[in-house]
Amino acid sequence: MNYVNLDKTDGLKKLNSLKRTAVKELLTPERVHTSDIPLGGGLRYNWAAMPVSDEAVSALQDLADETELVDKYREILKGEVMNTGEKRLVLHHLTRGNVLGQSVMADGEDKGAFYSSVLDSIKSFSEKVRNGEIKGSTGKAIKTVCQIGIGGSDLGPRALYLALKGWADGCGIKTLNAEFISNVDPDDAAAVIKRLDFETTLFILVSKSGTTQETLTNRDLVLETLKSSPIPGLVPSKHMVAVTSKTSPLAKDSSMLASFFIDDYIGGRYSSTSAVGGTVLSLAFGFDTFRALLDGAHEEDVKATEKDITKNGALMDALIGFYLRNILGYPSTAILPYSQALSRFPAHLQQLDMESNGKHVNRFGEKVSYPTGPVIFGEPGTNGQHSFYQLLHQGTDIVPLQFIGFRNCQYGQDIETAGSTSQKKLNANLSAQIAAFARGKEDENTNKEFDGNRPSSLIYGDKLTPEALGALLAHYENKVMFQGFIWNLNSFDQEGVQLGKVLAKKVLAGCEGDELLKAYADLLI
Amino acid sequence: MNYVNLDKTDGLKKLNSLKRTAVKELLTPERVHTSDIPLGGGLRYNWAAMPVSDEAVSALQDLADETELVDKYREILKGEVMNTGEKRLVLHHLTRGNVLGQSVMADGEDKGAFYSSVLDSIKSFSEKVRNGEIKGSTGKAIKTVCQIGIGGSDLGPRALYLALKGWADGCGIKTLNAEFISNVDPDDAAAVIKRLDFETTLFILVSKSGTTQETLTNRDLVLETLKSSPIPGLVPSKHMVAVTSKTSPLAKDSSMLASFFIDDYIGGRYSSTSAVGGTVLSLAFGFDTFRALLDGAHEEDVKATEKDITKNGALMDALIGFYLRNILGYPSTAILPYSQALSRFPAHLQQLDMESNGKHVNRFGEKVSYPTGPVIFGEPGTNGQHSFYQLLHQGTDIVPLQFIGFRNCQYGQDIETAGSTSQKKLNANLSAQIAAFARGKEDENTNKEFDGNRPSSLIYGDKLTPEALGALLAHYENKVMFQGFIWNLNSFDQEGVQLGKVLAKKVLAGCEGDELLKAYADLLI
Repeated sequence: MNYVNLDKTDGLKKLNSLKRTAVKELLTPERVHTSDIPLGGGLRYNWAAMPVSDEAVSALQDLADETELVDKYREILKGEVMNTGEKRLVLHHLTRGNVLGQSVMADGEDKGAFYSSVLDSIKSFSEKVRNGEIKGSTGKAIKTVCQIGIGGSDLGPRALYLALKGWADGCGIKTLNAEFISNVDPDDAAAVIKRLDFETTLFILVSKSGTTQETLTNRDLVLETLKSSPIPGLVPSKHMVAVTSKTSPLAKDSSMLASFFIDDYIGGRYSSTSAVGGTVLSLAFGFDTFRALLDGAHEEDVKATEKDITKNGALMDALIGFYLRNILGYPSTAILPYSQALSRFPAHLQQLDMESNGKHVNRFGEKVSYPTGPVIFGEPGTNGQHSFYQLLHQGTDIVPLQFIGFRNCQYGQDIETAGSTSQKKLNANLSAQIAAFARGKEDENTNKEFDGNRPSSLIYGDKLTPEALGALLAHYENKVMFQGFIWNLNSFDQEGVQLGKVLAKKVLAGCEGDELLKAYADLLI
Repeated sequence: MNYVNLDKTDGLKKLNSLKRTAVKELLTPERVHTSDIPLGGGLRYNWAAMPVSDEAVSALQDLADETELVDKYREILKGEVMNTGEKRLVLHHLTRGNVLGQSVMADGEDKGAFYSSVLDSIKSFSEKVRNGEIKGSTGKAIKTVCQIGIGGSDLGPRALYLALKGWADGCGIKTLNAEFISNVDPDDAAAVIKRLDFETTLFILVSKSGTTQETLTNRDLVLETLKSSPIPGLVPSKHMVAVTSKTSPLAKDSSMLASFFIDDYIGGRYSSTSAVGGTVLSLAFGFDTFRALLDGAHEEDVKATEKDITKNGALMDALIGFYLRNILGYPSTAILPYSQALSRFPAHLQQLDMESNGKHVNRFGEKVSYPTGPVIFGEPGTNGQHSFYQLLHQGTDIVPLQFIGFRNCQYGQDIETAGSTSQKKLNANLSAQIAAFARGKEDENTNKEFDGNRPSSLIYGDKLTPEALGALLAHYENKVMFQGFIWNLNSFDQEGVQLGKVLAKKVLAGCEGDELLKAYADLLI
């Protein structure tokens, strides 16, 4: 494989030498229909309003070939040690299916078979809880599941749960309510616990290492609260399962009602399709729903092996994103789902992208001389239109935009007012925004003038189903992976989170009181 | 007043000529204690870890004096037409108190007296609802209030409600549950409506103009749902109040149970301390709680009249933010509250800041040649540590950070595990992060190396009370106002949101089906 820094590629030189073409010059009604790539799960990726000419697309294809982006993805799928920093395989794709159809062996076992066996145990357990075979310790059926986890054990599963709640309701699927405790701030747990009926709640404790400070602290807080409950017959351990690695201290905790395993080859932010997301989603919506999500993700994983960038949405998205960052110099990207169900999806992508590619050294530990991952932020539309879109339209900086939209709503509870349904209004706004950002508007009053040329892409589909959601998730995971390859990074470690942990322990070991400022000043001595 | 573009000031020239000093060189334990300014509500603003030398602070003071920042604030307080684009006064400060002690007359009335009278009616109405004097139409007491509004009628009130819920619970204050419907996506309303007991719910319809598409659509959706409810005796109009301006169509809607008024001098994103926030917060937590929030905000408004920047936290924060943006060239800022209660406060600040100062023309409509408002994003700590902090610590770009923290939690439900309480762990992490970002760490392994020199500030206090929250809100409002003056902008209009509205209407008028892509392409013809 050709693991070379971006600034040593012919592709970058070529792209820097090309004439830059503005969105306004490129965007025509025809281009809207021709710049459109099918993704998995019935979704499509449209890049018509991106400032890449035919010439630039051709040069991006050359760069993709030169840096062997798809071949490197295939290396991941084959089980190469692509997490070079931690010397680990990268196997999250295998949790949803086997793209290359060949087995991946590690630690003396077939990893595909291992992930399948975990799925089987999640299926069996979740069905028993949902049909009442497994009950709470006082004999009542479980109605709520409460995940205790942080980072990848929280953001992805939470975003996916919220994304499917309306779909499940709209389909009449039996739903267990899901709650999430993540922050070490005791007010997070207190607020959630206040809402819970302990007798009908099952806690899911999620920590791969089994040593995450926040998660263990919240487990203890929850167990203390359960133990001090006056409810007769309540047995706290009968209300808690674990998702962890086989080698973690939690795996040895025999008091748990059940354990579901992950391993070191699934990074936290890539773990939504492992037991980390699978346990809570299967309990909340049934295993079939989670399986459908995996199938959508797998379909997109297969599509991502295509070398022609005009047929590989994740690859095209990655290359255009690199173009915006390294050729045009834009430092941030906004994620704008026109779907309230995706309210926390931008927060998940913020983690996925910024933790994967917010790096200053390449995969060999050498400092790079070019910008890597951008700042990612976003909120659902139309809400954002009444908030930060002012800056996006008329600010002095250009922020590239990634829109997401669906033809139909999830609940199916819509009415027509003033000549249109709410869903039609929602999508009219989405179409309008893309055009407004791209085209702008001249006006004699400069305060009402829009320069336009704000680049955007659109991922769209019929409805936010489990298959579509799985494909959406996999699209972004694969986009981030391809960008990591372009920048020659290891997108699968996170050494940047360590220093804060070490210093926090130092404070806790030495701090006499709870005086914030003193602790901060003392750390500087 | 000296309304001059930033690039014409002596201050900018002087600041550009100064030697730049890195955070590492400046930050000492002593500086932590000396770079600390009292705000209102018992809060303090600490700027020790910001890259401004004594010389730079002195030059920032000169710029503040040269551009008459405090005098311009006083002009706002006196009732000058500071919203030049819309030719309006800017009176949100007056909703919490009279800073200068002189009356502001507009449209033939004393505006201070007007806002006071609105407060009186909110007090009276909310007390009657809370004590059961005003009931739902079927005779049941109101237990839930549901705000229907978007943008400023949603983000601020929602963030403040979430921020005070734990405090009220911890104090044993009677609480009405609050829900919010904002997005025109019908799934937003459907998800909320599913949770509501109509008989015990009071809806608060909030639209200053009375013409906001999303809000009217959601009102109709809610009213239709109420009308089709099989509950005997349910009278929809008895379950809805309005917050609007006296001249809006809503004000004439006699079917409303009550109306609470605002006026054109309160911008949406500045309306949290008007009836827009006051109605829902007084109903949820009692009028005294809202009054305490106003008092905290007023205290901070008074402090913001101080001309010495080392004694005026909002002014210092504004000037340092300008320094980071225009001298050091950083395009974004992260807001990082170590308080789960502030989970949506960054989203409110995102609106407040980006909608106010995301502008490319000055207050006279002339294009400016320098960067204005930055991108604002953020999530609570410690959650963010397990997410995007990787990029903040080790990414190729520098993102300035604004931390917020409190010594004590709100609920008071905390336990000691592994030698410390959760709250102590939370704050240990906060102190550790500030030090880690500033100082960094050398390491032979470059992948474990931290360059440091990541600037940050800290707003901190004893506990997140209504007074502290009010002061926090006012601090940021005043910071944004001062920055608008530095950039010579009108921070109080939002022409950038108009074009999308116009095009969306065009789509709705002409669109045959609900085909997203067709509508988008058609707009380009």
